[in-house]
Amino acid sequence: MTNHNQPLDILRPSGRAFDQLREVRIERHFTKHAEGSVLISMGETRVLCTASVLEKVPPFLKGQGQGWVTAEYGMLPRATHTRSDREAAKGKQSGRTQEIQRLIGRSLRAVIDMKMLGERTIQLDCDVLQADGGTRCASITGAWIALSDALTGLLQSGALTQSPLTDSIAAVSVGMVRGRAVLDLDYIEDSDCDADVNVVMTGAGRFVEIQGTAEGMTFDRADLDALLALAQSGIGSLTVKQLDAVKN
Amino acid sequence: MTNHNQPLDILRPSGRAFDQLREVRIERHFTKHAEGSVLISMGETRVLCTASVLEKVPPFLKGQGQGWVTAEYGMLPRATHTRSDREAAKGKQSGRTQEIQRLIGRSLRAVIDMKMLGERTIQLDCDVLQADGGTRCASITGAWIALSDALTGLLQSGALTQSPLTDSIAAVSVGMVRGRAVLDLDYIEDSDCDADVNVVMTGAGRFVEIQGTAEGMTFDRADLDALLALAQSGIGSLTVKQLDAVKN
Amino acid sequence: MTNHNQPLDILRPSGRAFDQLREVRIERHFTKHAEGSVLISMGETRVLCTASVLEKVPPFLKGQGQGWVTAEYGMLPRATHTRSDREAAKGKQSGRTQEIQRLIGRSLRAVIDMKMLGERTIQLDCDVLQADGGTRCASITGAWIALSDALTGLLQSGALTQSPLTDSIAAVSVGMVRGRAVLDLDYIEDSDCDADVNVVMTGAGRFVEIQGTAEGMTFDRADLDALLALAQSGIGSLTVKQLDAVKN
Amino acid sequence: MTNHNQPLDILRPSGRAFDQLREVRIERHFTKHAEGSVLISMGETRVLCTASVLEKVPPFLKGQGQGWVTAEYGMLPRATHTRSDREAAKGKQSGRTQEIQRLIGRSLRAVIDMKMLGERTIQLDCDVLQADGGTRCASITGAWIALSDALTGLLQSGALTQSPLTDSIAAVSVGMVRGRAVLDLDYIEDSDCDADVNVVMTGAGRFVEIQGTAEGMTFDRADLDALLALAQSGIGSLTVKQLDAVKN
Amino acid sequence: MTNHNQPLDILRPSGRAFDQLREVRIERHFTKHAEGSVLISMGETRVLCTASVLEKVPPFLKGQGQGWVTAEYGMLPRATHTRSDREAAKGKQSGRTQEIQRLIGRSLRAVIDMKMLGERTIQLDCDVLQADGGTRCASITGAWIALSDALTGLLQSGALTQSPLTDSIAAVSVGMVRGRAVLDLDYIEDSDCDADVNVVMTGAGRFVEIQGTAEGMTFDRADLDALLALAQSGIGSLTVKQLDAVKN
Amino acid sequence: MTNHNQPLDILRPSGRAFDQLREVRIERHFTKHAEGSVLISMGETRVLCTASVLEKVPPFLKGQGQGWVTAEYGMLPRATHTRSDREAAKGKQSGRTQEIQRLIGRSLRAVIDMKMLGERTIQLDCDVLQADGGTRCASITGAWIALSDALTGLLQSGALTQSPLTDSIAAVSVGMVRGRAVLDLDYIEDSDCDADVNVVMTGAGRFVEIQGTAEGMTFDRADLDALLALAQSGIGSLTVKQLDAVKN
Repeated sequence: MTNHNQPLDILRPSGRAFDQLREVRIERHFTKHAEGSVLISMGETRVLCTASVLEKVPPFLKGQGQGWVTAEYGMLPRATHTRSDREAAKGKQSGRTQEIQRLIGRSLRAVIDMKMLGERTIQLDCDVLQADGGTRCASITGAWIALSDALTGLLQSGALTQSPLTDSIAAVSVGMVRGRAVLDLDYIEDSDCDADVNVVMTGAGRFVEIQGTAEGMTFDRADLDALLALAQSGIGSLTVKQLDAVKN
Repeated sequence: MTNHNQPLDILRPSGRAFDQLREVRIERHFTKHAEGSVLISMGETRVLCTASVLEKVPPFLKGQGQGWVTAEYGMLPRATHTRSDREAAKGKQSGRTQEIQRLIGRSLRAVIDMKMLGERTIQLDCDVLQADGGTRCASITGAWIALSDALTGLLQSGALTQSPLTDSIAAVSVGMVRGRAVLDLDYIEDSDCDADVNVVMTGAGRFVEIQGTAEGMTFDRADLDALLALAQSGIGSLTVKQLDAVKN
Repeated sequence: MTNHNQPLDILRPSGRAFDQLREVRIERHFTKHAEGSVLISMGETRVLCTASVLEKVPPFLKGQGQGWVTAEYGMLPRATHTRSDREAAKGKQSGRTQEIQRLIGRSLRAVIDMKMLGERTIQLDCDVLQADGGTRCASITGAWIALSDALTGLLQSGALTQSPLTDSIAAVSVGMVRGRAVLDLDYIEDSDCDADVNVVMTGAGRFVEIQGTAEGMTFDRADLDALLALAQSGIGSLTVKQLDAVKN
Repeated sequence: MTNHNQPLDILRPSGRAFDQLREVRIERHFTKHAEGSVLISMGETRVLCTASVLEKVPPFLKGQGQGWVTAEYGMLPRATHTRSDREAAKGKQSGRTQEIQRLIGRSLRAVIDMKMLGERTIQLDCDVLQADGGTRCASITGAWIALSDALTGLLQSGALTQSPLTDSIAAVSVGMVRGRAVLDLDYIEDSDCDADVNVVMTGAGRFVEIQGTAEGMTFDRADLDALLALAQSGIGSLTVKQLDAVKN
Repeated sequence: MTNHNQPLDILRPSGRAFDQLREVRIERHFTKHAEGSVLISMGETRVLCTASVLEKVPPFLKGQGQGWVTAEYGMLPRATHTRSDREAAKGKQSGRTQEIQRLIGRSLRAVIDMKMLGERTIQLDCDVLQADGGTRCASITGAWIALSDALTGLLQSGALTQSPLTDSIAAVSVGMVRGRAVLDLDYIEDSDCDADVNVVMTGAGRFVEIQGTAEGMTFDRADLDALLALAQSGIGSLTVKQLDAVKN
Repeated sequence: MTNHNQPLDILRPSGRAFDQLREVRIERHFTKHAEGSVLISMGETRVLCTASVLEKVPPFLKGQGQGWVTAEYGMLPRATHTRSDREAAKGKQSGRTQEIQRLIGRSLRAVIDMKMLGERTIQLDCDVLQADGGTRCASITGAWIALSDALTGLLQSGALTQSPLTDSIAAVSVGMVRGRAVLDLDYIEDSDCDADVNVVMTGAGRFVEIQGTAEGMTFDRADLDALLALAQSGIGSLTVKQLDAVKN
């Protein structure tokens, strides 16, 4: 029995309103070697996103006059409540890790003109220093800023004369928690929710990725509409913060 | 410039109408050892789905009085137009493979009452004999039948007294091809589409998974609405075929 | 105490005579992408054998004006009575798998003129859909047909002007079961036998491979002679079926 | 021609005196989940050291009434001047990584009374966020603080009644650069040096580890004496900072 | 055109007669830790075979009151003419290595009464120090002596009261070289031969394994008969040397 | 309470004086294929060291007109008191193995003029046939002889006109055992010691590597001085034996 007329006073563990993002902090130039380096915090979730410019492309693109954008994702072993095994020590990345890094890469490729980028690769690395839910969305939102910084550097050095960025990209999770749609789930809500949807949208409000999953309870079309509306609003706010960050 | 008033006469490579599924064939008991064994064909895509009953549960569920459903996915090396490397020989499953098998497992778990299943695992194996687009959706749709057959066996042997199945599950892909929403993409359309969405729904019409991706071109809310409507209709047809198959 | 005057009325679990093959079925063009694609059934053992033409050779043969034939072998996890782990998920092929695929490759190379093949590789994939004993022999017998079909295609397209095939190849297992030599062991007999020998021969009746193993009980020269005679006869029958199949 | 009467005015790339440490910063509680979490900076080298308390011991210590301390080490891919491959993606830890994490673990075990620790493990994770030389030494120095914080937590919760820490531990690198011994090499000096020695000492001034290596030029006993004297002095300063940090 | 009336004066690269073994040397107690340790030389091929007694059985045999014998095989990287990659560094054993170690294990299990051995494992390690053809046969012949020594130790210590050895085992290779059957191929002949057969027999002259392979040229029944006769004679000589060695 | 006035009569398990090396035996040309092949014995520790000349360099050195020297290390599974798992079977080299082989390679590179070596690699393989402590030191001492023999071969063949060897290299372990410094620890002393230091020095008495470790008890500067003096003396004796060996 889903109630779509949800009141503003829904009690979330964090005390946030149902349509309220966590506090977003963006620290650019967090490390010094990378061409773009951003520490993004969505509440207690903190992800270090670096963009590295590599003057080469993967084999399948060689000699085609175009570039590539790709991503890798990792979590420090004690980013989480209890320690997780180190993937490098186990000798392989989990299915979850691979799924997330593929998502990040696809998302960012959606706003890059690969021809204009030229025969180079922007390699994004999203490493979670502290996890409290929503790490993949924070990674995408932060990685876009690192990517933008790296491209600005290429423009300033004259390696590029025109930016290959066609729009901004941000991501947020929304979910049905105890029958109500809420925005930007933290870890407690994520563990407790019936269904969650990760939404990636451009600054212009177009969809790039929608990944909705119901492990606990299936959802209907009205639920989905409510969730997508929340996501759209949340991404609007994130876009403002991103554009503000790269302006300075 | 998306046109949502798309005419019925859209020219698809296969000659199908924009809202027409490929021919669906379901062969139960395709192999003899598995408790459920279904060869499902969606047009030229053919997937062998087997369900194995294992009288044990994964370590994290031991002693909790409940069962588990999980899935693995594979493609024969020459299921595809050109030969792909054998994952067993390469020594690891690709990110794509892992993503798909996680999706299949999550989808089927959504319609199982794990307490009622008891301390046993149903292991689904979806192996693509021939690929022509939509292998993950065919896998889910076929695996549900194999799962149902395995559970029927447990009921007949008396190992279960009541079915833990709460509903049926089917999946279909929809996509924007040259500006129009079409149902059940084959390989040619899949290679050519701007955005595609894999939708998993229950027989009752509720969402289990939505995975929408725009590598070519982002999509707007109206596109999404058109795609979801097509998916809902396609899944309705698949559900009829599934229920018909298991009745015999 | 072996009895070489074995009567025709030996009781086999299948009811077959001691020198009787299982029913052989050969379905060519079982899948559509591969240049050769054969589903071979030896009784309940069913193996999908595909031949892929690759216009390249392995590094050690580059620039030597000759081709290569090689094979890989796999079993679907539930091809067997109880589910086996998926090798791709375990991250490596078992010793048994490697031994078998090396055997298949060596066997087929014995009837190919590599110079005449030219700088290309025929890659054979033998995937067991259902196992009931004798999968390696069925793989070799079926793979030869797939190989022949692929070569016929190269002749028809003009890529080859003369066939590099010098003979046919077939394989069968024979074994000592409870003191008697029998032909073409199925799973029950294989589990029960004292010694088994896999024999690969050309259509002309020459030996390509003999792999005899006694885990249960060693065998003497008279046993071996009886086994080889049975194998020769069985391979004669298989050769007739192969030639008949490729004629159509 | 080594000159042991080296003047104080040696020109180091950083402008430091030959016996001057880089600026040391210690941020405790840098992340919130770990029982100890320290971001240590030695100049531009920044390492996040976390200590996790695990209520179990490795198999070889089970039932022996004693605990264990162990360490893992990693570098974020873009901690370095040019991006390094991610070890989790490559599927194994390099020899260098393993060597370093073994060193960290051995070093910290030297100041723990394992009986007093009881049957639990303190797992240290040292992850380099930014590298500028000396990451293994910074890891050891920082990890000791994280370890100390974790043990303090166990004392405060009553899980321990007495601290198993017998002393502090710190580490520093020294090296022969263009014929002179200098303290605490940064990346530029490290790349340029003839020989470097990593020294781990207790707060009481006793040696725990000495790892001296001459890839460029071998060194004599007088060089070694000069290097060890510098190391002893540097470790004295680091010990003061460590004790100061954990006092607050 | 095979000639079975081959003269005694066939010219072998080594100057040996066609039915002449290489010089066999057996050094027992070559290393001191193993319960059996034999350096066997067949001409220039030298293999160190050790037998280790482990007071445990593999999981599939637990609690069944019987033992196990198994083998591993390796080659030092520069045992061969040109250096081969180290398998430990590559991270996997080749198909050839696995095939050989499976053969060694099966062979030796054929002469052990597993019930009489009791719940323990004899682990054989065959490491090739120098290779000049026939390493798998030398491994089997030498491993039997190491196994025998280990069992003698168990009898002497009272751990066994009766020997579980039912016979001896030896192995030799025979091959068709330029149309003639010869015994005990060295590397030059092995590279040059049309077909080779590895034969494993008991001291009583019964077959344990026959592995015949024709990569160069197929062989007929008369060839096989000639080869098996040579093998039988060669194994007779090896058996004498084995029994002589363990008597002292 | 360390006593530096240690009497000559300290009781070592082997009966050796505190400053006495184990018996050293050097067998050159132990195997025939390698360009250098030395079996070195330090008491009961026996290591086979081979040097292979490869006419190529690693990718990072291509086209730079210089050579490379590198090393790999392994232990036969039953070189040790109880059997260790085979690294090739486990699929990876342990951290200890990698640490040792990196040490061997670095040590030998210290006495080679890489320009003079030319674009070739000398690959050293150190395989422990029997272990009784000090295997890494024996490996270095033996590998230098194998390297020297390989270079002599290059000089004799005219491939080199001048030797790229700038000095000899030897290694020895020293340790604090029950409060006293002793030379060349065997396995019993190694297991029992408070601290041990592996020292690598040139024939000219200069340091190449010092690796000191205190797992049991930390050590002070006076301990270290005593240990280094012992090491220097031991390496002097080893150098004499090395030079004597290569003279013949």
